[in-house]
Amino acid sequence: MKKILLATTALVGFAGAASAEVTISGSAEMGIAGGNRGAVTQFWTQIDATFSMSGTTDGGLTFGADIDLDESDGRNTTIFPTIGASPAFAGLTQGGETIFISGSFGKITMGDTDGALDWAAQEIYMGTAIADDHSSHAGAYWNSGLDGTAGGQIARYEYSFGSFAAAVSAEIDTSIANNDVFGVGVKYSGDFGGTKVGFGLGYQDNSVQSMYAVTANATMSNGIVINVGYADLDAQAVGAKDTWAGIGVGYTSGALLVAANYGSYDVLGGPTVDGWGLVANYDLGGGAVVMAGYGTSSNVPVTPAGNEIGGLYGSDDTFSVGLGLSF
Amino acid sequence: MKKILLATTALVGFAGAASAEVTISGSAEMGIAGGNRGAVTQFWTQIDATFSMSGTTDGGLTFGADIDLDESDGRNTTIFPTIGASPAFAGLTQGGETIFISGSFGKITMGDTDGALDWAAQEIYMGTAIADDHSSHAGAYWNSGLDGTAGGQIARYEYSFGSFAAAVSAEIDTSIANNDVFGVGVKYSGDFGGTKVGFGLGYQDNSVQSMYAVTANATMSNGIVINVGYADLDAQAVGAKDTWAGIGVGYTSGALLVAANYGSYDVLGGPTVDGWGLVANYDLGGGAVVMAGYGTSSNVPVTPAGNEIGGLYGSDDTFSVGLGLSF
Amino acid sequence: MKKILLATTALVGFAGAASAEVTISGSAEMGIAGGNRGAVTQFWTQIDATFSMSGTTDGGLTFGADIDLDESDGRNTTIFPTIGASPAFAGLTQGGETIFISGSFGKITMGDTDGALDWAAQEIYMGTAIADDHSSHAGAYWNSGLDGTAGGQIARYEYSFGSFAAAVSAEIDTSIANNDVFGVGVKYSGDFGGTKVGFGLGYQDNSVQSMYAVTANATMSNGIVINVGYADLDAQAVGAKDTWAGIGVGYTSGALLVAANYGSYDVLGGPTVDGWGLVANYDLGGGAVVMAGYGTSSNVPVTPAGNEIGGLYGSDDTFSVGLGLSF
Repeated sequence: MKKILLATTALVGFAGAASAEVTISGSAEMGIAGGNRGAVTQFWTQIDATFSMSGTTDGGLTFGADIDLDESDGRNTTIFPTIGASPAFAGLTQGGETIFISGSFGKITMGDTDGALDWAAQEIYMGTAIADDHSSHAGAYWNSGLDGTAGGQIARYEYSFGSFAAAVSAEIDTSIANNDVFGVGVKYSGDFGGTKVGFGLGYQDNSVQSMYAVTANATMSNGIVINVGYADLDAQAVGAKDTWAGIGVGYTSGALLVAANYGSYDVLGGPTVDGWGLVANYDLGGGAVVMAGYGTSSNVPVTPAGNEIGGLYGSDDTFSVGLGLSF
Repeated sequence: MKKILLATTALVGFAGAASAEVTISGSAEMGIAGGNRGAVTQFWTQIDATFSMSGTTDGGLTFGADIDLDESDGRNTTIFPTIGASPAFAGLTQGGETIFISGSFGKITMGDTDGALDWAAQEIYMGTAIADDHSSHAGAYWNSGLDGTAGGQIARYEYSFGSFAAAVSAEIDTSIANNDVFGVGVKYSGDFGGTKVGFGLGYQDNSVQSMYAVTANATMSNGIVINVGYADLDAQAVGAKDTWAGIGVGYTSGALLVAANYGSYDVLGGPTVDGWGLVANYDLGGGAVVMAGYGTSSNVPVTPAGNEIGGLYGSDDTFSVGLGLSF
Repeated sequence: MKKILLATTALVGFAGAASAEVTISGSAEMGIAGGNRGAVTQFWTQIDATFSMSGTTDGGLTFGADIDLDESDGRNTTIFPTIGASPAFAGLTQGGETIFISGSFGKITMGDTDGALDWAAQEIYMGTAIADDHSSHAGAYWNSGLDGTAGGQIARYEYSFGSFAAAVSAEIDTSIANNDVFGVGVKYSGDFGGTKVGFGLGYQDNSVQSMYAVTANATMSNGIVINVGYADLDAQAVGAKDTWAGIGVGYTSGALLVAANYGSYDVLGGPTVDGWGLVANYDLGGGAVVMAGYGTSSNVPVTPAGNEIGGLYGSDDTFSVGLGLSF
């Protein structure tokens, strides 16, 4: 009684008939993960499925929404601490869902989406590891800016013009502090003699902190990619992270991708916290990729009992090797 | 690697091949919600997906089941207070799932389904608002009768004959109180010179309380709809709601629907609690509808800190404006 | 806007186009369940959906993964006691997901999969009851061996050669006890003059306990099936189960299956704990099966308030009757 979902390519003949549709894709990981984190090297398995919804109005506006299966599961947020209901299903909160409508006026996206800073700034990381070791060491930064400081329910408007695109975003603080987050970002992509280059600049403010991030990246025709980034995190107290700088370099040849990155935080009145990562991916085709990742950190407070991989604490070195599968 | 699900209309040619199948549909909302509830006007995002299962036996009986993605997520019920497992997946409890089998003998439905009172009585509400402001004010009633007073695991049998249909239902109380809920309902629908009319009458008893509801509705050929309802709630204590009466009026013209409703509760030994609601929907086609809703309440106890929209308490006026999307 | 998923048989023409795909199947149960467990006879409803993912690498390796909808819901494990997040979505834990890759080298499966003992040993049970009464009495055993004693995250390698297949498995204990579980199993299937026979032998050890199980089964051409099993559970303390033996006998004729089973535990320094079960299934076609089950237990500690069906305690006799539906 199993039902099979057709691959998109097989459905070209039907495309006109489906004005609103739900598609499902999946991902899974299997392998081993370890490191000197006080825990033994262990098996690693992870799975997820994504519901992607899309449609078009009679007037030609496109709209859509998506949610992952893991996002439809309860979690311990400050809003629903132990109840076990995902905030994705309540209107005033987000739990991973994103919803958009777009047309010639631009695009509006709401829910668990990037603020304008993160939207404009490009990550320095390439490749994937099953435990994300290479991109979650103590020196890693994901341009998150002030996103999530007011519940994470974000609205972003973006508009493209030629090689440029710009966005503004807002996140409403419903606490009495009323520290709404506003952001603006702009990015550029172009081609200079076969080298694709991109720049991003983003800024966010919540009346208490002002952050900005600037990134640049170049993809050369010989397969080498270089990404650099800098962020001002506007530390408000001794011990808080104040600035970040990072670089990522990758090389792709056929089915193989290898990449390395380094990132470093300046801490207000404290030592520099940094780390670097390595990753190798080999594509077996059909959705299967062999993945190996490594990350190492310096100057991180170590909590001895932690089994967590990818946290900023309790971790000096982590590695993982396995298969990443896409369906 | 995304998989696309075909729209039903594209599949007529395959209909004979699929005797049992799972279909998926989705919904999403984006917009803003506010009101004078002590909380600021906020972003609103919500998403859901429905798994609908159907099949036919060799003898021609049809059967099916459905569950929503949000119902597959744990919640804080009296049965699983903080554990985070949805009661949908345990046999002796329900968490939103419904399951049915039907044939010439009628139809049996079990799970999170309406008791016979709610099945027979028609709601007075038309249209949709992203925060349901128009249909969740203090005067709103949904003909829930005694449903859910014994765990919400309901079995209902229904049978149609001509313009009439009748149902009986049961909900077993597994506590020592043993207050099983039994119900009976009958409804009628007909056409009088182009005006479609309907009547519903339902009754429920659990050995402690006896409730009944009676409803009538008329849909005129000029686009006007009038719904009225009355319910005896059999209050057992001072301060409890004893009777309810309500009216809803709507008008549809092309892509536009506007509607208003008023409902009022008589409280045993207390003041009348009432409220009214307004809603406007404009259909953009393809599954996208612009929605605006407003609700206002009188004589409701106000809890100052509440951010809830749609609750009976802590709320005087609420509104929401946004997009409702169906996939 | 409902999307329909095609039955596999309708898609033969498209098979070559879909190298990686997600299929969805569903199941539901409706009926009544009861017994002399201090609880009244109640309605029973249950639902689930399965996401099955599969793909093929360019080199011809096949891979896949699956997870059920109920497994994507939080649960009260020792790892996530009240938080409500399913461990299926975290790499170092399992919450029901299985992931595999296979080729001429054999097959590797990871996640919530059987250890080599359970993989090799065949259950004695036939047929299904909505509350599994027949296969969950006090004398029932499912060849679980030591699976789950170290978190349940299992890796198993299996290989087939002619009528034989063999497997090895491991489950890593991340506690300081470090009681990793290792297992080995072998099974055989053959045909002797129209009677299909099978044998299984499995062994597991975790440095503290050593368990083994041996099973045999015969399916005769007249529709009679006989399954027998024996397990050494290596009790470590007075009151613990030390050995188990069981037999199941079934008969299939057309749409009807009837089966009975008996199982008995020897308890170290205590009385024998045993039970037997009966089940009848009648297939209505199209995915609908009428199911009736009964189970009875002896020498079980009875906790008076328990409403649980299928637990080993608080239960003398249980029964259930209803419909099992597959989609």
